[in-house]
Amino acid sequence: MTVHPSHRAVYTEGSRPDIRVPFTEISLDDSDGPTGPIPNEPLRVYRTAGPGSDPSSGLPPLRAGWVADRGDVEEYDGRRRALADDGRSAVRRGAATAEWKGERRTPLRAVDGVRVTQMHYARKGVVTPEMEFVAIRESCDVDLVREEVAAGRAIIPANVNHPEIEPMIIGKRFLVKVNANIGNSAVTSSIEEEVAKLTWATTWGADTVMDLSTGDDIHTTREWIVRNSPVPIGTVPIYQALEKVDGEADQLTWEIFRDTVVEQCEQGVDYMTIHAGVLLRYVPMTARRITGIVSRGGSIMAGWCLAHHQENFLYTHFDELCEIFARYDVSFSLGDGLRPGCVADANDEAQLSELRTLAELTSRAWEHDVQVMVEGPGHVPLHLVEENVRLQQEWCHGAPFYTLGPLATDIAPGYDHITSAIGAAAIAMHGTAMLCYVTPKEHLGLPNRDDVKTGVITYKLAAHSADVAKGHPGARRWDDTLSKARFEFRWQDQFALSLDPHTAEAFHDETLPAEPAKTAHFCSMCGPKFCSMRISQDVRRYAAEHGLDSAEAIERGMEEKSAEFADLGKDVYLAPSSIPVGAPD
Amino acid sequence: MTVHPSHRAVYTEGSRPDIRVPFTEISLDDSDGPTGPIPNEPLRVYRTAGPGSDPSSGLPPLRAGWVADRGDVEEYDGRRRALADDGRSAVRRGAATAEWKGERRTPLRAVDGVRVTQMHYARKGVVTPEMEFVAIRESCDVDLVREEVAAGRAIIPANVNHPEIEPMIIGKRFLVKVNANIGNSAVTSSIEEEVAKLTWATTWGADTVMDLSTGDDIHTTREWIVRNSPVPIGTVPIYQALEKVDGEADQLTWEIFRDTVVEQCEQGVDYMTIHAGVLLRYVPMTARRITGIVSRGGSIMAGWCLAHHQENFLYTHFDELCEIFARYDVSFSLGDGLRPGCVADANDEAQLSELRTLAELTSRAWEHDVQVMVEGPGHVPLHLVEENVRLQQEWCHGAPFYTLGPLATDIAPGYDHITSAIGAAAIAMHGTAMLCYVTPKEHLGLPNRDDVKTGVITYKLAAHSADVAKGHPGARRWDDTLSKARFEFRWQDQFALSLDPHTAEAFHDETLPAEPAKTAHFCSMCGPKFCSMRISQDVRRYAAEHGLDSAEAIERGMEEKSAEFADLGKDVYLAPSSIPVGAPD
Repeated sequence: MTVHPSHRAVYTEGSRPDIRVPFTEISLDDSDGPTGPIPNEPLRVYRTAGPGSDPSSGLPPLRAGWVADRGDVEEYDGRRRALADDGRSAVRRGAATAEWKGERRTPLRAVDGVRVTQMHYARKGVVTPEMEFVAIRESCDVDLVREEVAAGRAIIPANVNHPEIEPMIIGKRFLVKVNANIGNSAVTSSIEEEVAKLTWATTWGADTVMDLSTGDDIHTTREWIVRNSPVPIGTVPIYQALEKVDGEADQLTWEIFRDTVVEQCEQGVDYMTIHAGVLLRYVPMTARRITGIVSRGGSIMAGWCLAHHQENFLYTHFDELCEIFARYDVSFSLGDGLRPGCVADANDEAQLSELRTLAELTSRAWEHDVQVMVEGPGHVPLHLVEENVRLQQEWCHGAPFYTLGPLATDIAPGYDHITSAIGAAAIAMHGTAMLCYVTPKEHLGLPNRDDVKTGVITYKLAAHSADVAKGHPGARRWDDTLSKARFEFRWQDQFALSLDPHTAEAFHDETLPAEPAKTAHFCSMCGPKFCSMRISQDVRRYAAEHGLDSAEAIERGMEEKSAEFADLGKDVYLAPSSIPVGAPD
Repeated sequence: MTVHPSHRAVYTEGSRPDIRVPFTEISLDDSDGPTGPIPNEPLRVYRTAGPGSDPSSGLPPLRAGWVADRGDVEEYDGRRRALADDGRSAVRRGAATAEWKGERRTPLRAVDGVRVTQMHYARKGVVTPEMEFVAIRESCDVDLVREEVAAGRAIIPANVNHPEIEPMIIGKRFLVKVNANIGNSAVTSSIEEEVAKLTWATTWGADTVMDLSTGDDIHTTREWIVRNSPVPIGTVPIYQALEKVDGEADQLTWEIFRDTVVEQCEQGVDYMTIHAGVLLRYVPMTARRITGIVSRGGSIMAGWCLAHHQENFLYTHFDELCEIFARYDVSFSLGDGLRPGCVADANDEAQLSELRTLAELTSRAWEHDVQVMVEGPGHVPLHLVEENVRLQQEWCHGAPFYTLGPLATDIAPGYDHITSAIGAAAIAMHGTAMLCYVTPKEHLGLPNRDDVKTGVITYKLAAHSADVAKGHPGARRWDDTLSKARFEFRWQDQFALSLDPHTAEAFHDETLPAEPAKTAHFCSMCGPKFCSMRISQDVRRYAAEHGLDSAEAIERGMEEKSAEFADLGKDVYLAPSSIPVGAPD
C-alpha cells in the first residue's frame, strides 16, 4: 500500500534478478527559479510496506529460491498441528475461528549437523542474497553487512520458513529500526483485525512486528500474520505455552515450551523473546521495587521459579534452544524480564544482574552461530539512558540492543508514546539498534488501528532523529528535502514528504482549506500580508543573481540591495492578488 | 479550574497573609495492606490554573499591595490609548470588537531615577514577597531565589502593572517551565477564543503565555488576556509595531516601536521578545541556509536592515529600552531572530554570531538591573543539542535559556509537538530553564483548543522528564506516587495523577468500560487470567510478612515460599469471579 499519490514503489535490482529491493520514491514539484522552473530530484526512502496481496493468499515467497539454492535445508513432516495450539474453543469447535486457507508449505530445517543462520554464513565469509538485499536497502557496502553479522553486532532475522520477508538488518551501524506489537488478548479482537494491524503497521514503516497474542486462535492468527508479513515476525513463545497449561505458570515444563518453540519455528517466526535471564536468585531483588516485575514473560518465569524453587528452565536448557534456532535461523531476542516498570526502579540490581546473564547467554548463542539481540527497558530517567546502552554494549560484546522506549517519566498515561519517544530517540542516538514502539494506550488498554499508526509514526520520527544525530549517511537528506520544500512553499511536497501525509494535509486544511492556499506563498501563521520566509528568499535571490558567494561579498552588495528594495515599493511582501483567503482589511 | 474530582486547590501561607501560594492537592485511595487499608498521603503538585474568575471582570490584583508597599512607583496618566492600536477596523468602527469593560487601573511606573526590578531588589539583598512566593512554590530556600535572581541566572517576570500574577521563576536551578503561545492572526480567531485559550493553557499547566496576535484588536485582545492571566504574559512588540505601519517593515521607526513598547508596559506585559541581535552584518550569513530566516521578528528586522542598510534600531537603542524596562520591571526575552529553521541550519555562523550579540546585550541589560532570558532554537539535531545550551550558558553568563523545542527532525509535520518534545526534554536536561511549546499544528496551521492542550501536556511531560533527570528535589515523587498506584491497580488514582486524567480514563474505558474494571486487579493488556504485577506483589508480600530485608534473606526464604505457592493451588493468579469482562473460556 502506498500512502500518497506522489509515492510509488520502485525497485533496485541486485546481482540476480530475484534480488529486487523496494524503495518508496516521492516525486516532487519543480522549484521556481529566477529564469523558470527547476526540477527537483525525487526522493527515495526506505520502504517496509511490502508488495501487497490478498491477505487470504499470503505474499509471494521471495526468499524460497535463495534458501533452496544453499542446499543445506531439508523438507520434513514437521510437528503435527494440534487443535489445542489454538486454545480450548478451537478444540470444542474442531477448528480455529478462521483457519488459514492459503498455501501451506512443508516445513524446512537444516539438514542434520548443519547451521543455516546468516551468522554462520557471514562467519564463513559467504555473502548471501539476504546480505546483498540488506546492503542495497541500507545503501552501504555489503562487506559491512557481512562483517557486522559475523561479529554479532548486527542480525538479519530470517527464518528459512518465512520466505515472504524482504530482508532487513538490525545493528547500530545501520538505520535504527522500529518494531510494532500487535496481537489479540483474552479481552478483545479477531484474526482479521490483527492481520489488518500488521498491514497497517508495515504501511507506516514498522520494520518488524511482534505477534503477542494471548487469546484464542494463537496458532492460526500467527499463521495469517506470518504468511502476510513482508517484515520479520517476532513472538514471545512463553505466552502460547502458558495458554497450553491454562494459565498456570507452575505447570509449564521445558517439554511444553520446546514443543511450542518448534511449532513457531516451523511457521516461520523470525525472532523469539526468551526470558532466560530471569534467574531464581534475581527474583528477590525485585521485592523492594516500586513496581516489582512488569514484564509478562519475566513474571511467568519468576512465578515458575518460585513455585518450583528451581532454576529457570529456559536458562538450564539454553543450549538446546540454540540448537533448535540454528536449524531454522531463528534469532534470539533475549528478554529483559526484570526490566524496570517505573523510573525509580531503573538501572537497579535486578535489571543489571539480569543483563550480565543476558551477556553470558549472548556468548553461548554465538557459539552456535545463532543471531542475538538483547532487550532493554522500559522506564528510565533521561540521565540514566546512556548508561543503559553503554553497559549493554560493553557486557554483551556489541550485540544489538532492542529497547522498549524507554519512558522518561511515569506521570503521563495517555501520552506514553511521547514520554517513551523522548527516551527512545536518546537511547537510539547512543546506540540502540531497534526500538519497540509504545502506543498512546500503553498502561491503559489495547491499541486500535489509530493507536498502531500513531505509535509507528512516533517511533519512526524518534528513530530518524537518532539516524540524523548519528550522522547516518543519507539520513538528513530527507529532512533537507522537506525543509527546502517548506522554504519554497511547495505545500504538496511538504505533505508528500511527511511521515504522515494525510495528517499534515488535514491540519493545513483546517486553517486554510481553499485549494489555492496550497500553492500560496505563505502559511496560516503569518497570513498573506507578511511572511518571514519571503525575506530570506529575497536575500538568497539577490545573492544568487549577483554571483555573491561569500558573506563578505554579499555584505558588500547590501548597499545596492538596499536601494533596489526601496525601488520595489519597500513592501516586504507583495501579496498575490489571486489568493482568496479570509480578507484581512 | 480543576481538572479532576480528586484535585483541589490548596494554599500555603507565607510570612504575610496575602502570600498564599497555590498547589493542586491530589487525594488518593487507600492501599490494601495485609491487615487492612493503608492510607496514602495526598500528593501536592505545582499549580498554574490561578484562582479563576469571570473573564469579563479579570482576576484580583494579588500583588498590588506588594508593589505599593515598596513605595517606589508612581501612578501617571500614561500614554493615550489610540484606536489605531487595534488596527484599521477599530478606527473605522470607533471601537475594538469587544472593548475591555473591566477595571482599568492607572498605570504605574518607577519614580524618576529608580529601578523597580526584582533583580534590583535581589542585588540590594531585599527579599520581596514575589521571591518568598516563588520559594514556597518551588519548595526551596528563599536565599537561593534571591541569589539566582541577583546573579541573573533566574528571572521573576513581574511587571508592576500586572498585579494579577502568581509569581513564578525561570532559571535552571528551579523546575523547568513551559510557555504556551496563543494569539490571533490575519486569517483567523476572536478575542473570546484567545482568552479561552489562555485559561485553557494555564489549566493544563502553562507557566507563562505569549500573546502573539497579529490580526485585528491587538491592543484589546492583550488587555483581556493580561487582566485574566495568573501567569506572566510575554509578547513580541514588533508584531504590533508592524501592524501600525501596515505591514511595511521599512516604515518601522524606533519611535513607533518605542511607543508600542510603552503601550504594552502600561498594560502589564511581563516579558518582551526583542530581536536586537539581528545585526546587519549577520543577515547575509543566512543566504546559503536551506531555510534562511524563519523567525518572524528576525525577518522583520532583517527586512528593515536591508531596506535602510542601517544597523538594527533595536540594537542601537538598546540602552533606552533597558531604561524603559527598568521602570516597569519588564524582562527581556532576547529573541533569536536568526535561529535555524531546519536541522541542516543548526549551530551555524548566523545563529552563533547572533548568540554572541545576545550575550553582549545580556550584560548591558544587567547594568540596568533589567532581568533577561535568552531565546534559543528551533530545529537542532540531537547530537548538537547540548552544545546549544553550553555555549549559551558560557557566553551569556548563565542567563536563563528559553528554547522553542528544538525539533530533532524535520520530516514529521503533523507530529512536531513530538519531534520537538524530544529535543526539548534533552535541552532542558542540559540546562534550558523554560521551553516554548510546539503544537501538532506547527508549520501547518493555527492551534485550536485541542492543539493547545496537546502542546501544553506534551511540554509538561518533557519538562518533568528533565526535572527528574536533573534530580530536582521532589520531582520524582510524582512519578513514584503514580507508579505505586499502577502497581497496586488503583486505577482511579492513576487517572487522577496523570497530567491528563480525562484522556487516561477515556483510553482505559475504550478497552474495559465497565465500572468494576476500574477496581479490578488486572488490566486489558493481559486480561484477568494472568497478570505480571500480581507475581511481584506475591514476592513483595511474602518478603514483608516474613521480615526479609535483604536479598540473601529473601532467597533463603524461597524454599518455604515455593511450598506455600504449591499449597495455594499453583495458580499464579486467582481471578476474582465478580468481574464481568468479556468471558474468556
